[in-house]
Amino acid sequence: MQFQLTNELIEKVELFVNEQNDKELKKLLNEFHYADIAEILDELDLDDAVYLIKLLDSETTSDILTELDEDTREKVLQNLSAKEIAEEVEELDTDDAVDIIAELPQDRQQAVINQIEDQEHRDEIQELLAYDEDSAGGLMAKELVKVYETWTVAGCLRRIRGQAKDVTRVHSIYVVNKQEQLIGRLSLKDLIVAKSEQKIAEIKKDNVDWVHVNDDVEDVARVMAKYDLEAIPVVDDSQTLLGRITIDDIVDVLKEEADKDYQLAAGITQDVDLDDSILELTKARLPWLFLGLLGGIGAFIIMEGFQEAFNKYAVLFFFTPLIAAMAGNVGVQSSAIIVQGLANDDVKGSVNGRLIKEMLLAALNGVILAVFLFLFVWIYNGEMLKAVAISVSLVAVIIIAGLIGTFVPLFLDKKGIDPAIATGPFITTSNDILGILLYFWIAKLILGI
Amino acid sequence: MQFQLTNELIEKVELFVNEQNDKELKKLLNEFHYADIAEILDELDLDDAVYLIKLLDSETTSDILTELDEDTREKVLQNLSAKEIAEEVEELDTDDAVDIIAELPQDRQQAVINQIEDQEHRDEIQELLAYDEDSAGGLMAKELVKVYETWTVAGCLRRIRGQAKDVTRVHSIYVVNKQEQLIGRLSLKDLIVAKSEQKIAEIKKDNVDWVHVNDDVEDVARVMAKYDLEAIPVVDDSQTLLGRITIDDIVDVLKEEADKDYQLAAGITQDVDLDDSILELTKARLPWLFLGLLGGIGAFIIMEGFQEAFNKYAVLFFFTPLIAAMAGNVGVQSSAIIVQGLANDDVKGSVNGRLIKEMLLAALNGVILAVFLFLFVWIYNGEMLKAVAISVSLVAVIIIAGLIGTFVPLFLDKKGIDPAIATGPFITTSNDILGILLYFWIAKLILGI
Repeated sequence: MQFQLTNELIEKVELFVNEQNDKELKKLLNEFHYADIAEILDELDLDDAVYLIKLLDSETTSDILTELDEDTREKVLQNLSAKEIAEEVEELDTDDAVDIIAELPQDRQQAVINQIEDQEHRDEIQELLAYDEDSAGGLMAKELVKVYETWTVAGCLRRIRGQAKDVTRVHSIYVVNKQEQLIGRLSLKDLIVAKSEQKIAEIKKDNVDWVHVNDDVEDVARVMAKYDLEAIPVVDDSQTLLGRITIDDIVDVLKEEADKDYQLAAGITQDVDLDDSILELTKARLPWLFLGLLGGIGAFIIMEGFQEAFNKYAVLFFFTPLIAAMAGNVGVQSSAIIVQGLANDDVKGSVNGRLIKEMLLAALNGVILAVFLFLFVWIYNGEMLKAVAISVSLVAVIIIAGLIGTFVPLFLDKKGIDPAIATGPFITTSNDILGILLYFWIAKLILGI
Repeated sequence: MQFQLTNELIEKVELFVNEQNDKELKKLLNEFHYADIAEILDELDLDDAVYLIKLLDSETTSDILTELDEDTREKVLQNLSAKEIAEEVEELDTDDAVDIIAELPQDRQQAVINQIEDQEHRDEIQELLAYDEDSAGGLMAKELVKVYETWTVAGCLRRIRGQAKDVTRVHSIYVVNKQEQLIGRLSLKDLIVAKSEQKIAEIKKDNVDWVHVNDDVEDVARVMAKYDLEAIPVVDDSQTLLGRITIDDIVDVLKEEADKDYQLAAGITQDVDLDDSILELTKARLPWLFLGLLGGIGAFIIMEGFQEAFNKYAVLFFFTPLIAAMAGNVGVQSSAIIVQGLANDDVKGSVNGRLIKEMLLAALNGVILAVFLFLFVWIYNGEMLKAVAISVSLVAVIIIAGLIGTFVPLFLDKKGIDPAIATGPFITTSNDILGILLYFWIAKLILGI
């Protein structure tokens, strides 16, 4: 059942498009899932992709659009009229519809919305567009199955048959009171198992989880993952039921979040793909490299400042890459653990406690490594005092690097800045400089230069 | 609705435990979700945690056990008898039951299984334990709702009422033929909307996604995320329906995967937590630091080899941290993009094509940075030839670092090794050494030392 995107398949599609052999194209593509067709389209020339989008019926193409690479989608949408986009959007659930419309340039957004024929769908999309895209409101869909507590099971099943047609997946049935406030939930299973004359109020479950419409999407993801929820209702200040968020959107949020953190740690800003242009990749990578360059220049200036010790203790200078590397590695290790702890909401207790623990940990690692380095330098070089100076500096550098790696992400998080920034070249660079400075300073002290 | 784990709450629980005030304990804890109670237990002393597990009824405690930190769970289970563990396991779905049993020492596993009273549950757990934990079989549950194609809608609903009681969430109803082979699916919604005398064979959907029992969990996660599935059936070679995997398990797989990649990139082996002991954290961090130390010693030996050039061109040595940092940063950037591309199954086309693109990208970045560095050295130092030597080396180092960063993860992946290993200290260290070697070699060539 696994779909394989082969060159043969793409060539076949291209051939049919060139021949305008619509019949064969439809026959071929109808076999595939829309997510697979999206993969094919991502590989085609823009003209061919647009041709296919216009060829297939909008029930399929609307789903294809949601699965395309962002870049491809942007280009395809540029080649569709506002009317054509509106037709696609009409087929989608409100959350997906809003995602597509939000990517359009401001002036086209209203043009597309005006072309949506279904008044209710149009109003709902307008409402959702107003929410911040990083909030629960920006992620939720208006499609849900809602019942009133006063209904009977039989009446409920009858009405649900109507509502459920518009809802791709019924996870939970939300129970509201006359004021449209969320007061409970039901599963379809509960309904089927219940007796038909029972009142909803009797069989509803009261302990319904919910999120507030302004909650951050990362918090929503955390709640849903923690409680193993597959959908969660969204309410406003007065507990009125506004929409629901489903787990598939959360899977996407988690993946994007993880990708972003990973990229930040690797010194890549912006969300880039393997297949982005060299220019886009340069824009994402150059700033951090430039930071590294400035750090290197800083290290140069420090080392130059210690030049007078040079003739006597040249060997010290040969260990600067080692010191810099260790400072960087330790810093990244400790900040990565903190960043992950923050992401999983695991950071409890005082900052001081964290710092003391990291100091002990770094000291332990540092001493083990320093003993090894001491033996190497002593045996290789024969001069014990130099070996002492280098090893003692190493321990100090590792401890300081660990403390910085622990403190910086905690500090950034407190200031409301994404702590993941701290795990990449930022920590490496600052630890490089500080490590080298500390190293020469301690070595100088011990050697009495 | 948000649960807050406060010190007051923990102290209150500890007080009640000390007083053995079971009534208040039950009243207090009954308010909370089992995932929240697990968070409380993670913070308690082992004795208190075990007391609570024995106090609360096994319907709740079985769920609590699945949510505990692995370390806490291991310790709690050590304090329960085989009989007590079997009682917990009886309450759980087979997939969760197997997760718990698999964590026990080999000799206790059989003891617990023998104590499970329900024959069917016991057999199913035995079956699941035999699968590799990284395969679809290791992740699936036996609980699912299955109907035969020959049944009518009415008969189906009647029987589902029975089956569904054992299934926490009905995602899909799987349709099988007489040979128990998976031939289609239905949603509860389809059933409710259909006429009661219709045959299942008439209303079933044929395009059912499935995975093979031996498929890798990461592939399962990829398929489920791609097709937005909330559950997927698992079959064997003869298409016999064996079990199903639900999205909440996939969310956990994705999170673990992302955490592991992130930690590898940061130079942390083993899955560690903020709250692990200093010894555990040291074990996870020290090996990579040791690698960095060896790299630093390598750099030392290289620099010592170029010592004769020292008196004349001391300034060259002051730039080694810069060169090493740039080599490391570029290497991590390029390998991170490849590792992520591999994880998202985005790496198509030839390796050569990737390398050429990375070379162009690195060259572009390198030249921009080198121009800046050239101007700095020239203005600061006044010697153009030295400035040329340093800048040209920088370009070369960046290109080579980019190529290594691209090639190594691709190579590891081809050899079946997790490419994420390549993004951490491994790349940094090898690029450090190679970068420094290349730098001195090119500088020597240009300056004619």
